[in-house]
Amino acid sequence: MKFQLTDEIIEQVELLISGNNDKELKHVLDEFHYADIAEILDELDLEQSIYVIKLLDSETTSDILMELDEDIREKVLQNLSAKEIAEEIEELDTDDAADMIMELPEERQEEVISNIEDEEHKAEIEELLAYDEDTAGGLMAKELVKVYETWTVAGCMRRIRGQAKDVTRVHSIYVVDKQEKLIGRLSLKDLIVAKSDQKIADIAKDNVDFVNVNDDAEDVAKVMSKYDLEAIPVVDDEQTLLGRITIDDIVDVLKEEADKDYQLAAGITQDVEADDSILELTRARLPWLFLGLVGGIGAFIIMYYFEGSLPEEAIILFLFTPLIAAMAGNVGVQSSAIIVQGLANDDVKGSINNRLIKEMLLAALNGVILSVFLFLFVYAWEFDLKLALSISVSLVAVIIIAGLIGTFIPLFLDKRGVDPAIATGPFITTSNDIFGIVIYLMIAKLILGI
Amino acid sequence: MKFQLTDEIIEQVELLISGNNDKELKHVLDEFHYADIAEILDELDLEQSIYVIKLLDSETTSDILMELDEDIREKVLQNLSAKEIAEEIEELDTDDAADMIMELPEERQEEVISNIEDEEHKAEIEELLAYDEDTAGGLMAKELVKVYETWTVAGCMRRIRGQAKDVTRVHSIYVVDKQEKLIGRLSLKDLIVAKSDQKIADIAKDNVDFVNVNDDAEDVAKVMSKYDLEAIPVVDDEQTLLGRITIDDIVDVLKEEADKDYQLAAGITQDVEADDSILELTRARLPWLFLGLVGGIGAFIIMYYFEGSLPEEAIILFLFTPLIAAMAGNVGVQSSAIIVQGLANDDVKGSINNRLIKEMLLAALNGVILSVFLFLFVYAWEFDLKLALSISVSLVAVIIIAGLIGTFIPLFLDKRGVDPAIATGPFITTSNDIFGIVIYLMIAKLILGI
Repeated sequence: MKFQLTDEIIEQVELLISGNNDKELKHVLDEFHYADIAEILDELDLEQSIYVIKLLDSETTSDILMELDEDIREKVLQNLSAKEIAEEIEELDTDDAADMIMELPEERQEEVISNIEDEEHKAEIEELLAYDEDTAGGLMAKELVKVYETWTVAGCMRRIRGQAKDVTRVHSIYVVDKQEKLIGRLSLKDLIVAKSDQKIADIAKDNVDFVNVNDDAEDVAKVMSKYDLEAIPVVDDEQTLLGRITIDDIVDVLKEEADKDYQLAAGITQDVEADDSILELTRARLPWLFLGLVGGIGAFIIMYYFEGSLPEEAIILFLFTPLIAAMAGNVGVQSSAIIVQGLANDDVKGSINNRLIKEMLLAALNGVILSVFLFLFVYAWEFDLKLALSISVSLVAVIIIAGLIGTFIPLFLDKRGVDPAIATGPFITTSNDIFGIVIYLMIAKLILGI
Repeated sequence: MKFQLTDEIIEQVELLISGNNDKELKHVLDEFHYADIAEILDELDLEQSIYVIKLLDSETTSDILMELDEDIREKVLQNLSAKEIAEEIEELDTDDAADMIMELPEERQEEVISNIEDEEHKAEIEELLAYDEDTAGGLMAKELVKVYETWTVAGCMRRIRGQAKDVTRVHSIYVVDKQEKLIGRLSLKDLIVAKSDQKIADIAKDNVDFVNVNDDAEDVAKVMSKYDLEAIPVVDDEQTLLGRITIDDIVDVLKEEADKDYQLAAGITQDVEADDSILELTRARLPWLFLGLVGGIGAFIIMYYFEGSLPEEAIILFLFTPLIAAMAGNVGVQSSAIIVQGLANDDVKGSINNRLIKEMLLAALNGVILSVFLFLFVYAWEFDLKLALSISVSLVAVIIIAGLIGTFIPLFLDKRGVDPAIATGPFITTSNDIFGIVIYLMIAKLILGI
């Protein structure tokens, strides 16, 4: 059952392409799901991919194109004429069609749209192009099944036979009034179970969930996963039914969101993948590394001035700075990550003060346990009680402060409407490195009395 | 439309509970979706929550219970009798029912099961309990709509009216042969569009996707999201239809997986939330901090021995160790995160060697850019060409090695069948701290000729 992309399959396809053996190639590829063909194309040369795309029917190739890696799709589309792209778009649902057009360079968009023959499809795509990508309007498709409240079950069945042909998955049937305002919904099951002379208005459920066309995509994802919805209708401010969003689009939103947060925590901006070019990866990684470098230089400058004021025997303090910095960084990342995740899942309620108090207790507990261990090590190493005490006491202080900073910054950013995910990773580790080293050296100086 | 949990709502509910005003309380809560009621209960005391659960019909409360935070659900269930829990379970779909029973202490499980009155439901739940949580069997539900290939469309419609009542969402209708083996599928739409005297065998699609009951849950999630499936049937080795998995369960698997990876990258084991107790949070965070502490002590020991062999003027080298350690850690996390994410999305193909060469080039590019900057800073600060050179050359070396370690370790773990996500975060930063400091001091010694 399960498709496994093997070198043999790729070799076979390459051989058939180079031999121009179209009939056999078509025969081989017809066996595969479009998502599998996309995987094969991801491994082929650009020319070979274009060969396959031009060979197969646009009904299949439009789906293949949507499954390709974005950069490969871009290159393939560059090699197709506006008319050829328009043919692919005729086969796509309106939401995918609009997404594909959005990826084209602006000067080609108009040309491709003017080549779409189906006027209704064209108008619907143009409507969708007007919405912001990150809103419900940017996610929704125009394909849906709609019935009027005044119809009977039998009349409805007859009529939706026509509509349903254009809709891959029916999910819900939406009930509207004469003004096209959404007033309820039905499932196909309800329709099948109902008697044929019943009025739609009598069997429709009127507690229909919906979202506004301008709602944020992430909020739509939250609503759909909270209420376990597989499709949700989209309306405008007048409650007019405009389109619907299906769960597969939401799965993509959730995945992108999780990927983005994960990358930010690791110090990677922009949406990059392991297979992107070295230049793209550098652009995503270098700024954060640069932040780390500046932080490191800051730490150096601080230590430089402390060093000037310390006696020679205190040099051993400097040998512990990487430990202190690492602990400050680790605690900061832990506490910020748990807050960022809680905010993303809407789990974080209550006041900031309570959070900070809790984190302080947590950090104090962790800090004391770790410090006892560090105290024993330093004392065993140097037989110097004051030194062991000053290093381990500062570790507790550093851990508490690092935990508080890690908790406060994402909460603060979130209140200000900034994505708290940027607070995790290099941002927190760098600032905590510096705070940690300052606190450490100050406390050590105090205890050692130098 | 959208539900907003306000203090007023909670106060109102609390007031009605304390006044034993059952009728009004029921009336108020009936207005809300069960997912919203679960949110309200998450904010109430345990006694208040139990009051509400005992008040409402088990049809609603079973759904509310499934939406509650896991630890609150556990406490509520502790306060219900085996019979009461069995009543909740009668209302749940088999997959949720099995999940709820699995959460009970072992000694209660038997008691609750024996209290389930519906014998068929009981048998199905017992079947599901036998499967491993992380397999297709652990995800699937027994509820589905099944037809035999020999039926006609009209006969089929008549018969599935009965079956469909038990199934919240029909998705696909599965076609089986006389031996109950899965041989095809149909959508309700196909059935509505077909003529009533057609045979099921003639209109069924025979290229039905399915998974084996022992397949890994993560693999099921990958198959369903790759092929954009909203439900997938589950079969045994003989192709007998056993159950089906729906997209909402997969959304949960994907979310849990993403949360787990994110937490591991931040140095948090176990599945904890911001609202968990300080002890639970400590258990999840302390081991990683301890790893960092041990690493820091390792770094101290290394620096201690280097210090013994260095002349006094070389003390300035130690002031740069936090910078070197931070850069090694940041680069390591970046490269491991991108590999871990690529592996999770099945994006990482090709040989390990190619990956390592690419990462080396990438790290070299980043390293050189950053080192030029560091060189200028150190030279401007100390007017010492050799010192500036030795620090910046080692930074390039450290960044390259850190990138290679960050790339290699997750790939290596993945090949060995270990979850590569544990390689990100503290694990990588700690080992890179140590490697980084060793490489740095060695190169500096070499260039400075001391």
